[in-house]
Amino acid sequence: MPGIERKAFVLLSGGVDSTTCLYKAANEFPNIEGISIHYGQRHLKELEYAKKSCDAWSIVHTILTLNPDVLSGAMLTDERIEIPSVSYADLPHGVSPTYVPYRNGTLLSLVTAYAQKWVNKQQAPTPREAGIYFGAHAEDAHNWAYPDCTPEFIGAMANAIYVGTYKAVRLHTPVMWMQKYEIIQLGETLGVDWGLTWSCYKCEELHCGVCPTCRARQDAFRNADVEDPTVYQAMAA
Amino acid sequence: MPGIERKAFVLLSGGVDSTTCLYKAANEFPNIEGISIHYGQRHLKELEYAKKSCDAWSIVHTILTLNPDVLSGAMLTDERIEIPSVSYADLPHGVSPTYVPYRNGTLLSLVTAYAQKWVNKQQAPTPREAGIYFGAHAEDAHNWAYPDCTPEFIGAMANAIYVGTYKAVRLHTPVMWMQKYEIIQLGETLGVDWGLTWSCYKCEELHCGVCPTCRARQDAFRNADVEDPTVYQAMAA
Repeated sequence: MPGIERKAFVLLSGGVDSTTCLYKAANEFPNIEGISIHYGQRHLKELEYAKKSCDAWSIVHTILTLNPDVLSGAMLTDERIEIPSVSYADLPHGVSPTYVPYRNGTLLSLVTAYAQKWVNKQQAPTPREAGIYFGAHAEDAHNWAYPDCTPEFIGAMANAIYVGTYKAVRLHTPVMWMQKYEIIQLGETLGVDWGLTWSCYKCEELHCGVCPTCRARQDAFRNADVEDPTVYQAMAA
Repeated sequence: MPGIERKAFVLLSGGVDSTTCLYKAANEFPNIEGISIHYGQRHLKELEYAKKSCDAWSIVHTILTLNPDVLSGAMLTDERIEIPSVSYADLPHGVSPTYVPYRNGTLLSLVTAYAQKWVNKQQAPTPREAGIYFGAHAEDAHNWAYPDCTPEFIGAMANAIYVGTYKAVRLHTPVMWMQKYEIIQLGETLGVDWGLTWSCYKCEELHCGVCPTCRARQDAFRNADVEDPTVYQAMAA
């Protein structure tokens, strides 16, 4: 669009879903920035991998910091709680034990404020509009495992963001209706370097291979019929 | 409701609107907590006044801290930008210069995460549900002065909060359709001690009396026909 400067801000965890969104945003916006949030997650390796994918394409990568008190006390933010070595399918029906209360609402709010500051910059020579990319997908939403990944949440949040920024910022969720293996297939067509992604909830040298998200990663590559370059400490049965 | 433990978390800026919400919440919930957020606002005095109103009723007052980078660079968070000495009516039509990009979306997210942690506490003996009180009102929404105070934003955010917390947390906005003078009238019936509230955007010993929010405060007391105990440095014409 002539006369409008457009920029995408990609909420980047360094995993398969958000990294695929990074590549998709790069195809759809002339200017993109990766945003990761240090919120007290124990799997800090994701920040390092988020940066790797950005660096590979000279994309600016910014880390916003949230006071760790805000999202403390959940399995992913408290070292004392053991991460189960099972698949998502074997977890109890309903909200996942790896859900962090209202995490995505909080992270999206931080990115929105950041994006709107870019739109509002006094020195902006032309009108600006911003997109936020968020990689929630259908398996996250299934069984309400992650309430803050559901289409209902996304619809409400998209409205809150759009209205709350006075139409400066829109939410993009291009993989929200996809299974994880479909995201891998999409990422393949976009040229994603999977070796630069990190999924494991533990924070060890290698992917553990047996936590819920390592298992979901293995299943997704297998179902996508795409070679998984990941070296796992162990392979799930 | 028997068997359900209910608690309200009141987003408290120490001003007229949120303090009235504090009293309203106290009438409607058996247990309440005031939550203020230190987000880098220059008018830090509001935190002190928020605490005063809580202390007066032995209500727990909690301050959550947001990294000041997130909401930096706006008039209310940057000392270098001068706060105008005019009334809201004399500001340009549209978004107020005192709007902080996506501030309320961000603050509500922090309170929601905090409230959901309370709901989720492993040790909770009974099911829990939480309410969040937010004092946005009709004058905030008028002319889109504060996009993140509009009914459209509130509706979207209420949905995002309710769905995103898996129906653990609901948003309450009891003054959203009121003019500020009507809030003063409501507060009077609830017994609010106005001397424990602070409105001024500047952070001096006394209310300045001439910034937009001091003028709105003076007008509201006058139109409500309620005595204003505030000592102002100057009175607006």
